[in-house]
Parts: sequence; structure tokens; C-alpha cells
Amino acid sequence: MGAVRLMPGHVSWPLFPGRLDRGYSFVPTTFDVSEAERGVRSAVQLIDAALDEHSRPNEGCPAALSDAMRYSLLAPGKRLRPWMVLSAAEACGGNVEAAMPAACAVEMVHAYSLIHDDLPAMDDDDLRRGRPTCHKQFGEALAILAGDALLTLAFEVLARELKPEALAGRCCLELALAAGSAALVGGQADDLAAETGSGLTAGDVAAGDVAKLEAIHRRKTGAMFLVSLRLGGMCAAASSEQLTALDAYGKGIGLAFQIVDDLLDAGGDEKAVGKRLNKDADRGKLTFPRVLGIEASRRRAGELIAEALSALACFGSAAEGLEALARYVLERNR
Amino acid sequence: MGAVRLMPGHVSWPLFPGRLDRGYSFVPTTFDVSEAERGVRSAVQLIDAALDEHSRPNEGCPAALSDAMRYSLLAPGKRLRPWMVLSAAEACGGNVEAAMPAACAVEMVHAYSLIHDDLPAMDDDDLRRGRPTCHKQFGEALAILAGDALLTLAFEVLARELKPEALAGRCCLELALAAGSAALVGGQADDLAAETGSGLTAGDVAAGDVAKLEAIHRRKTGAMFLVSLRLGGMCAAASSEQLTALDAYGKGIGLAFQIVDDLLDAGGDEKAVGKRLNKDADRGKLTFPRVLGIEASRRRAGELIAEALSALACFGSAAEGLEALARYVLERNR
Repeated sequence: MGAVRLMPGHVSWPLFPGRLDRGYSFVPTTFDVSEAERGVRSAVQLIDAALDEHSRPNEGCPAALSDAMRYSLLAPGKRLRPWMVLSAAEACGGNVEAAMPAACAVEMVHAYSLIHDDLPAMDDDDLRRGRPTCHKQFGEALAILAGDALLTLAFEVLARELKPEALAGRCCLELALAAGSAALVGGQADDLAAETGSGLTAGDVAAGDVAKLEAIHRRKTGAMFLVSLRLGGMCAAASSEQLTALDAYGKGIGLAFQIVDDLLDAGGDEKAVGKRLNKDADRGKLTFPRVLGIEASRRRAGELIAEALSALACFGSAAEGLEALARYVLERNR
Repeated sequence: MGAVRLMPGHVSWPLFPGRLDRGYSFVPTTFDVSEAERGVRSAVQLIDAALDEHSRPNEGCPAALSDAMRYSLLAPGKRLRPWMVLSAAEACGGNVEAAMPAACAVEMVHAYSLIHDDLPAMDDDDLRRGRPTCHKQFGEALAILAGDALLTLAFEVLARELKPEALAGRCCLELALAAGSAALVGGQADDLAAETGSGLTAGDVAAGDVAKLEAIHRRKTGAMFLVSLRLGGMCAAASSEQLTALDAYGKGIGLAFQIVDDLLDAGGDEKAVGKRLNKDADRGKLTFPRVLGIEASRRRAGELIAEALSALACFGSAAEGLEALARYVLERNR
């Protein structure tokens, strides 16, 4: 694979230029959709090719396990987290190709978390990315193992591919913290607690606990967004000032992403979104639209994206990818 | 914690000096059991103290998740894999204390694998280490997450605690390979395949496929034994000759351990062993006693231990811990 330029024309975002008529668009879109689509398709293809390469079974991997891992990992997806890694590396002036293993690692962690979250004992979902969930396709036992193996593979890829070894060690630590009990896994445990009545539910709305809702979502979604950006930065030898800027940007788009997710869940098109909708409301879970109302949620998402964009000043034009990504987070329809 | 000398007297193995009347003892035991017990108890206490320290919840970890993780991780256990790490570090002339994070990491991976293997969708076990399994105690969803979090924590501890960072990166890679789809997780997938009839079952005995049985067990048990020894060696800056010797030793004791496990499963005391017995035979799975017979299995285990001991020559008296460990593997009653 030769050197990769992420932004072949003036823009390659959003990944899936969709309907922009949802009413909560914040940044006006000015790009040529067909041109953007072309650029995006080739970028997603590059990521998918790397995912394919890094998930080829090692000798000794049972075929059924490999099939289940690759079924979920390579399912059509937005590849949002890999794009964050690559765009952050680009913003920091680094070699995008050198960050590709980190891009694959965060997508592996994402795929594992979806497989386990969809299990009957957890969210019990049948549909993911428009296809049967892993346990529907391969059975529950193999789905558990496929998730376990993808999580492990993420660390393998980081530790083997990133150079020098000290960078690999630092990136493994960042990923472990973001995926661990105080972040990604802890967020899912929060979700469970909400469903069993011991966590934050719609009953808490009266207390106006928006800050608590935001804290939960920073953990559930935000940590993996942040680490995607940080890994990209670290692969590009980012300065501490650049990492701080990436953190500020990531906090904004992470929370905005979750608000838009809640809005899509409340009123999206199931076919376009590719998973069961209204499930949060069905379970009485607290969501942003329920706490703030639809319009205020849209406004809040817009404010967060504005904050995220303002954090990018120090990168100059190298942050074009991150800017487009922020717009996509707000405007996506799935 | 001050510098630790693992072998305070002339021996501190086996960890649990048990009945030595099982008839397949290979190496005569000469040590003073009460003295050994004292030394062992303090060594296990050191490991348990480190496990406790490294599993204290980070800020933001939900309490229920932390409880489930620590319930399984800190349950009374043989701590065989941590002992391998520490004994290997000692054999290679290293600082045992510096290897303690790696000792904790391999025990975390072991605890995670037990939690997930015990799940209803997998082996569906109610009893582990003499107590209710994690999902029996905390529910299935939290058990899945506790396993996920312990696996992730293993990499966090390695990546944060081992110095320099390049060593941390190398150790993360070794652990990921041993825990991954071609080793630990792959071995569990093999087990599933055996149960659903697509893998190796008792029906294969006619073909005399001992080599295949050994290959499966090298993957299922052996890889984590090997990596425990290698991490200990790497923390002690082992030479490639020393690592090769540790590999040869580990291959022998790994397979011997599995044979003894099968023998205990076939004829052990459920209370002493602390988990349900005869489950392999109940499920028609292929075991060493079924393929080779009881006596030949005992003989094979003895031969493997002899091979393992002969691989230790290059370490001289520093391998006292590893020698005692090999004897324990053969003579244990649980």
C-alpha cells in the first residue's frame, strides 16, 4: 500500500452523504456529493482492506471462529473510529499509513463491543449493520469467543505493527484504559444497571440530571472516540498541545454523536440505520430527547460540534478531515 | 513491597502438598511438607496482594462490575501461572518483583477465560474454585462484562507497569498471541466443536489420534503456560537460549498438566478439585485416559515431566522453583 492521502479533493466527508433534511444540521454542506462519495468509497476501501489483512486467521485458528470474527469485523460499517485515527494522524502532520494498525485496532474493539452488547444476556438484538447479529448467525458461544478474540487481536495488532516498540506499549495502555472497566465496559455495565432499575432511568429526569447523563455517555461512547484520536496523534508523534486539542475536539464530537444516536433511535429509519430502533425508549432508558426534548437536543449537538471545531484551530488546514468528520457526526442519518 | 526471594528455604513447592498416593507420582518427594506449606502460603499471599492491588477499581468503574471482577480474580486459586512467571524470572537471574505485573496479567487472563468458559452458552458450570461461578453469583450479563474487563485489565497492567515501554510492548504482543484466536480462545472453540460433533470426540479414538489431542491441548492450556514462562523470562532480560529452554520446559509441563487434569476429572474428589467432575466424559469428549488408558496416561505425564526437568539444565540451581513446579504439576490432587 503506497502513501495515502486522505483528502484527495477538497473533502471526503461525510462517509455516507445522506439526507440532510433532518432539521438539526449545524454546518451548511457545500461539497459535491458525488465527488465526496468517490473519495469516501476509496478511503473506506483502504480501511476495509487493512481490516481484512489484519484479521486473516493465524495458523491454528479454528475456521468457525475466524468466520465469526470476520463476519462482524468486516460487516459494512461507517468505520468512524478508524477514520478518526487516520484524520488525527493527518492533522498532526504524520504518515497516515503508519497509523493504519491503530485504526484497525479501534475498529476491532468496536466490533467486539457490538457482538457482546447484542448477546441475549445483554441487549438481545437480532439485527446489526443491516444483518443478523453474530450470535444469530453463529450461535451464542461462538459469538462470545469471537468478541473475546477480536478484543485480543486489537492488542496483537497494536503491539506487533506499531514501531518503535515503546510507541506500541504506550498505545496498548491507552487502548486498554479506553476499553476497560472505567470506560467502555463500565459504560455497558451502566446500561445494564439502568435496565434493572439500579442505574439512571427516565425517572431521574425530574432531577434534571443532564450532567450525569453526559458523564455516562462520555464513558460509553466518548472514551473510544477519544482514544481513536489520541492513537492517531501518538502515531504521528503529536505534541502535548496537539493531544490536548484532540481531546477537546473528541469530547465535543463524542457527546454530539450520542445525542444524534438518541435522535436517530427516536425517529430514524430502521432500514437506513441498520439496527432495531426505539429500543432505548422501549426499555425506559434515559435519552437526550427525553430529558431535553427534540429541539433542545439538536441545539445541544450543534453547540458541541461548534466547540469541537473551535478546538481544531492549532492544526490549520491539516484538520480538514477532522472538520468534515465533525459535520458528518451531526448530519448522519445512520 | 521489598525484594522478594521466592525460595526462602530449599523448596516451596508444591503449592498445596496433597495426597501423593495417586500412583502416578514420578519424582519422589523429599521435602518437609509443613515447611513447604509455610513458604508457599507466604508466596501465594504476595501474589494475592499484588492481584488485589492491581484490580482496585479505577475511578468511574461501576461497583457491581468491580465486585464481579474481583470475586473471580481473587477467589482462592493455585496461582500456578503467576508462579510460573515469577519462577521463570528467578531462573533467569532477574528481579522477581519486577515480574509481578506480568504475573498478575496472566492470572487476569486465566480468570477471564474461566468466567467465559463457565457461561451457560459455553460449559454451563455452576461451581468454580469451590464457589458459585461468576454468572451464578452476579448474573450472566455482568459475568460477560467482568470477563471482558479482566482481559482488558491484563493488557493495562502490562502496558502501565512494565519498564521500559519497549518491554511492555513486547510482552503485550506475547500475551495477545497466547490469549488469541490461534491459542486460548481457539482452544475453547475447539472444545465447542467437539461437543457439537464437528471436532475431536471419543469416536476418533479408533484412529489413534493422540497427536491431534496433544495439539489441541497445547493450544488450550499450553499456550498460557508458555507465555507465563516467557513473560517471566523477558522481565528478567533472558537470553534467547534461556527462552528456548523455558519453551521446552513449558511444553512438557503444559501437556502433563492437561493429562493430570483429565485423570483428576476421571477419578478425583469433587470437593478437593473444587469444580464439577466427569464433565468431559459426560459430554463424550476425548480425554487422555480414554485414549491411552489410566496407566499409560500416568506414564506419559511422567515422561513429559522428565523432559521438562531435563530442559532446565542451563539454569543450574536458579531453576529450583521451576523444578518444584514440575513436580507439583504431576503430584497435585486438584
